[in-house]
Amino acid sequence: MNKMERIHFDDFEQRKRAALINCLSGFKSANLVGTTSASGQDNLSIVSSCFHIGANPALMGMIIRPITTDRSRHTFDNILETKFCTLNHINEQMVEKAHQTSARYPQEQSEFEQVGLTAQKKDGFLAPFVLESPLQMGLELREHQHLKINGCEMLILEIQHLYTDPSWICPDGFVDIEAAGTLCVSGLDSYHKTQRISRLSYAKPETWPTHLSVKGSEK
Amino acid sequence: MNKMERIHFDDFEQRKRAALINCLSGFKSANLVGTTSASGQDNLSIVSSCFHIGANPALMGMIIRPITTDRSRHTFDNILETKFCTLNHINEQMVEKAHQTSARYPQEQSEFEQVGLTAQKKDGFLAPFVLESPLQMGLELREHQHLKINGCEMLILEIQHLYTDPSWICPDGFVDIEAAGTLCVSGLDSYHKTQRISRLSYAKPETWPTHLSVKGSEK
Repeated sequence: MNKMERIHFDDFEQRKRAALINCLSGFKSANLVGTTSASGQDNLSIVSSCFHIGANPALMGMIIRPITTDRSRHTFDNILETKFCTLNHINEQMVEKAHQTSARYPQEQSEFEQVGLTAQKKDGFLAPFVLESPLQMGLELREHQHLKINGCEMLILEIQHLYTDPSWICPDGFVDIEAAGTLCVSGLDSYHKTQRISRLSYAKPETWPTHLSVKGSEK
Repeated sequence: MNKMERIHFDDFEQRKRAALINCLSGFKSANLVGTTSASGQDNLSIVSSCFHIGANPALMGMIIRPITTDRSRHTFDNILETKFCTLNHINEQMVEKAHQTSARYPQEQSEFEQVGLTAQKKDGFLAPFVLESPLQMGLELREHQHLKINGCEMLILEIQHLYTDPSWICPDGFVDIEAAGTLCVSGLDSYHKTQRISRLSYAKPETWPTHLSVKGSEK
């Protein structure tokens, strides 16, 4: 058994507290957000705050820290101005470059150029995709809320374009993002690969879950 | 290079589309939500929709699907009625039991008993913790929003109690949830262990990220 103890994080100094609380929700998604300013300047930033809201319409949420912090302001301003952004999964080959986008580069510099990732424009979509990413999405802003409770901004975005390798899409629609090499994040700075335990069958009261293959069939 | 293609998910039938869109945000957190009804009936359900909102106050978001679906209604009703819930990380030893909580048990049955997990009450907190979990939190409801855009409910909860093994908390506050055995989820039914690539140093424009040990020191 683990030695469970109550942790009194209110006693922690501010940075240690922030590092701890950022770990508590569990593993987080890792995405690069691509945007373009109204004047055509590309911007790229890493976010671990994207979350699924619904499938129909296909909605994604994103939390952006209070915009008094420089780092997220360009992304936030660009999405509010142009209404569009891309989200791009991060794999191991690009993890350092992805992390480096969080440095505070001046607005007139593109993080794509600074970190060595490739901005890809396609299908008339305004915002730049990350060429090196194994799964790319183009999204349009649907709602913006200022969260009074702590000053964060919440964006609700609709997925309009999706690009990936179709061989990762299973017959039942499941996308094998582990095969795609998608990483996850814990806390502020820890990056992780994954190792599938199993897919589990749809739960019903009278039966016990069975292990499914990645393609969704009984093992 | 991957064979990137545009995926036209609007052409997918409804369940296949839902399975696909649920994978797109990336890996998701896996938590068990413990609640108690006003009449004292315990409830336990698995959620992959918890996300970090802020560290001070320590806030967590949770999306609950439209409450016309039976499965999430007991959890939602209990949190609205009592204002309290617990969140409990899921490890490999309990993954089948955790998944099985999503079966539609009648309200008068406790999922704790049905799946074989142990409800733990402590420190005067109203809602039940999961004894087997490596990281347990007690939370109080701060805000509730009905998302008109798709009928989902969004809860904002404040972390009040935290229990875990202190040996997983690093000197800088980082919690090694991989060492704790915490799992993540992709899509509706796929459970994954993780394997750390590295922690990366705080990004600055003039330097390149270096790899840190789990304790946050230079390797």
